Amino acid sequence: MPGKKRDSLEPVRWKNGALEAIDTTKLPGRLVYVRMRTVEQVCSAINSMKVRGAPLIGVVGGYGMVLAAMNLGGSDLNQARSQLRKSADALVLTRPTGVNLRWAVERVFKASSRVNSVASLGDELKLEADAILREELESAHKIGRFGAALIEDEDTVLTHCNAGALATAGYGTALAVVRSAVEQGKRVSVIATETRPLLQGSRLTAFELARDGIPVRVIADSAAAQLMAQGVVDKIVVGADRILGTGHVTNKIGTLPIALGAKFYGVPFYVAAPVSTLDLLTDVSRVVIEERDQREVLSIGGRRFAPRNVEALNPAFDITPPELVTGIVTDRGVVRQPLMENIRALFG
Amino acid sequence: MPGKKRDSLEPVRWKNGALEAIDTTKLPGRLVYVRMRTVEQVCSAINSMKVRGAPLIGVVGGYGMVLAAMNLGGSDLNQARSQLRKSADALVLTRPTGVNLRWAVERVFKASSRVNSVASLGDELKLEADAILREELESAHKIGRFGAALIEDEDTVLTHCNAGALATAGYGTALAVVRSAVEQGKRVSVIATETRPLLQGSRLTAFELARDGIPVRVIADSAAAQLMAQGVVDKIVVGADRILGTGHVTNKIGTLPIALGAKFYGVPFYVAAPVSTLDLLTDVSRVVIEERDQREVLSIGGRRFAPRNVEALNPAFDITPPELVTGIVTDRGVVRQPLMENIRALFG
Repeated sequence: MPGKKRDSLEPVRWKNGALEAIDTTKLPGRLVYVRMRTVEQVCSAINSMKVRGAPLIGVVGGYGMVLAAMNLGGSDLNQARSQLRKSADALVLTRPTGVNLRWAVERVFKASSRVNSVASLGDELKLEADAILREELESAHKIGRFGAALIEDEDTVLTHCNAGALATAGYGTALAVVRSAVEQGKRVSVIATETRPLLQGSRLTAFELARDGIPVRVIADSAAAQLMAQGVVDKIVVGADRILGTGHVTNKIGTLPIALGAKFYGVPFYVAAPVSTLDLLTDVSRVVIEERDQREVLSIGGRRFAPRNVEALNPAFDITPPELVTGIVTDRGVVRQPLMENIRALFG
Repeated sequence: MPGKKRDSLEPVRWKNGALEAIDTTKLPGRLVYVRMRTVEQVCSAINSMKVRGAPLIGVVGGYGMVLAAMNLGGSDLNQARSQLRKSADALVLTRPTGVNLRWAVERVFKASSRVNSVASLGDELKLEADAILREELESAHKIGRFGAALIEDEDTVLTHCNAGALATAGYGTALAVVRSAVEQGKRVSVIATETRPLLQGSRLTAFELARDGIPVRVIADSAAAQLMAQGVVDKIVVGADRILGTGHVTNKIGTLPIALGAKFYGVPFYVAAPVSTLDLLTDVSRVVIEERDQREVLSIGGRRFAPRNVEALNPAFDITPPELVTGIVTDRGVVRQPLMENIRALFG
């Protein structure tokens, strides 16, 4: 439909001196905001996955630092910075796997060195957090434009988890590519994996695409390969929580089997992420895969399906090796194979 | 524990002139039987997946023919056989993908040519159905013995869906391999994929293994590849709904991505199935993949998670190509690569 605004969702906002973010655990049933006034409330919102999605928790983590600064007492600047350091560490520890969170928190923390009074810390840090929000939203639109060139008219695009508006400052990463292609007039249909255990695909991706009038069908995570075998999937676009300099992509558990299917059946597999997701320093063997609560697997929506005396393994992420990735769509352009060389060139 | 009986579950039985099968939709909460007195009730139990698992629906389909025969009126044998033909067709149509059902139903139907009165049809067909039940239970134990030789002490075996006692006349196919290895004194631990959409892994596989004291942990379907990458999985053993002469394996949706992961990470991938699962005649392009109700994906346990205006794709099976299969464990021995040649030799 003409003139349809495709980034009408505002996943995060600063309102009346507090941070607000859409509580994604309530979707698709209710669109409500969680309101945060302390860094502890921010940590809790991230831990409970009310707020999730690597770029979005980066932005929210940045504002978490602002709240920490605003709540500081005293006038000793060194003591204040030491308090902020503790808040930064607490925020970063909430999700050990993604990298945007650390990047944003450290960036806002650094802004604390620009002031000479405790009283001005809050305002100075907020300038930095606002800049991150603004830049990440711009990045999302750039990712969309670069990625849309890869999508053809009538493509069926498979995506995993939610790498959409609800995972970012708005517009999305993987879904930014879809939105931008649609804005160019391409008829694109999406297949969304439901994404167990927390169903971000069927709850969030389906919600935000349907809201924008983009055709979307949900599948069980395990059906992706069969649909590729049947020729139903033209392209795959997923997000990322951390991309290493080697091109290894850490993303929501279930990304790796989709990449394996894509390689086997010759379907292009793209990762869409802002450069704030890149981590050039870490070796793949040192990436910490967050292990989440077993109950996320043993129960669904609070109802237990597995027998009482049974345990679960619940790794929240997997690592897709670079040879399975066709290209990485960033806000600075599309990185193609060889990924390591071309990631380096991006910063060169 | 010494003397522990590892096939204590009786998934199907003939009792007081009716067919009874464990209603697996009620597990793990309640162990109750569905009682069937007509072929329509058998079709309904299979359609609703109260009774599932290729070998078990074969056995149950066979008894469905017995019920059809017992409910026949009149004395015209030709008319009776024509009625039985209709019942056979109705039974086979309930699940188009598996092959044991057709095999068992046709075998029992053929027994109708051995009688010369309508009155004796029921008894004659029951002899055949009883024989199938007995043979399938024997097959399960043979599969267990052949397969156990592939399992080493302290192996962690990953399995998908439920290829256990609850999918067979008892003891299982994939889980027969595990049970037999445990009976040989090997310490085996199982990782069970939960198996969306209907959670046969977390509900049934976890239930029957925990009941037998075999360690079992549940994972989201999409976590299998990451656990293989981490070296946590030593062997994979799954069941099958239909194995072609080419070695293509049709099994529960989600088997294919596990096989792709196994190939990539070098984990042995075994399929365990009785020879009644083999279909030497059909070409892979002609295998019908059953598409089940969308609501199985959009809702879980009756609760809707996806938005109201969203659709789903729900293929119930996928097809694993032979090059991904290390070996097929049958009741006549283990078939290794090249599968096509060695499957032919099995019948040679």
